[in-house]
Amino acid sequence: MLVAVDCIIFGFDGKELKILLVQRHLEPELGKWSLMGGFVQPEENLKQAAARVLTLLTGLTNVYMEELLSFSEPNRDPVERTLSVAYFAFIDINKYEQQLSTEYHAEWFPLANFPKLIFDHNIMVQKAKARVQYKAAFHPILFELLPAKFTLPQLQSLYQGVYDVTMDKGNFSRKVLSTGLLVKQAEKDKASSKKGAYYYKLDKRKYNANFHAVLNIIPNPDTLYI
Amino acid sequence: MLVAVDCIIFGFDGKELKILLVQRHLEPELGKWSLMGGFVQPEENLKQAAARVLTLLTGLTNVYMEELLSFSEPNRDPVERTLSVAYFAFIDINKYEQQLSTEYHAEWFPLANFPKLIFDHNIMVQKAKARVQYKAAFHPILFELLPAKFTLPQLQSLYQGVYDVTMDKGNFSRKVLSTGLLVKQAEKDKASSKKGAYYYKLDKRKYNANFHAVLNIIPNPDTLYI
Repeated sequence: MLVAVDCIIFGFDGKELKILLVQRHLEPELGKWSLMGGFVQPEENLKQAAARVLTLLTGLTNVYMEELLSFSEPNRDPVERTLSVAYFAFIDINKYEQQLSTEYHAEWFPLANFPKLIFDHNIMVQKAKARVQYKAAFHPILFELLPAKFTLPQLQSLYQGVYDVTMDKGNFSRKVLSTGLLVKQAEKDKASSKKGAYYYKLDKRKYNANFHAVLNIIPNPDTLYI
Repeated sequence: MLVAVDCIIFGFDGKELKILLVQRHLEPELGKWSLMGGFVQPEENLKQAAARVLTLLTGLTNVYMEELLSFSEPNRDPVERTLSVAYFAFIDINKYEQQLSTEYHAEWFPLANFPKLIFDHNIMVQKAKARVQYKAAFHPILFELLPAKFTLPQLQSLYQGVYDVTMDKGNFSRKVLSTGLLVKQAEKDKASSKKGAYYYKLDKRKYNANFHAVLNIIPNPDTLYI
């Protein structure tokens, strides 16, 4: 059996939650949109294969990455039976764009609206999104997607993108500040509104210690069990 | 690459948390203790393969089972490169023992004290235990290991086995009853003590709705992040 990895790469540009897709450069399904993936090489384990694929595409190393699930329906690849183990990764899009590679015809799409993908890749994205919703309900992992300094409207957009909901601005600010995880900065972001929005930074010490702090931010966490 | 599944099968006999191991019947490592596993067949996906392996060994179907992780170090199997995807399963040992199969030389061992296993199987058990600790901190999954009627001392033994801690009896009872998930029965179990211990049943409706109810039972949940 062939063994491959596929990467569901999430990014946030300050406004929208996005995924990074590539245009497939081989048959079958040449030219169709796809997750970035590759076959596992003799000298590497699967996590190393996924990290290699991610670096090839983005130039980035040391990215937050986690194993999702295996995908193994006998006919999922029409050419030859291929098991794929999917990994999901979180990228700060602004960092990524400094090292854009055009070789793979990569493009960021809004998670809310992206093309039909080859094989079972749409199911992979759906499962990855569910896993992120689940983990982010209990742990502040979404901060991996943000730059060091961010505003509350940016953070709210990110949560809205992950959970497919619209949140009340006042409510969200109150909940998120009550976690005690954020440190207000003196500067404001004045690009997005006339009045401006204060920047915040994550308190890394509390981030590591404050296990339940994000629990209250999420609407209807009882629907997330996976 | 060969592709296999391995099953980490947890059971609880009312006193101790255990795992089900088999004595390996082929080379290499003939006669050594091992997780139950098998190669994936052409017509099945990996979850079906794991379910087949579990049924072969225990006779049980419809067992709680979940994909853990893939194990893919290039030299993990000395004969030929083999990727293994590990699944963990929860079994009520009493149900299992009605259908004991001797063909595989299977034996239950206490999770606190079991033999060294072949290949990377000890790491699989360790990772499975960490995943169970993590999930059980947020969800009442441990009830999958119990019979329909159980006592509070049994439930406490189970939690102690999963988290490697000794809990205060009064504290544990108070916390677990405050979840509102348990329904007290009229009967007592008189086998374990002179005074006897009331049986409880899980309220399945609340089990499905009451997402955070088990959170307070676990000591130091902040150490469980995986």
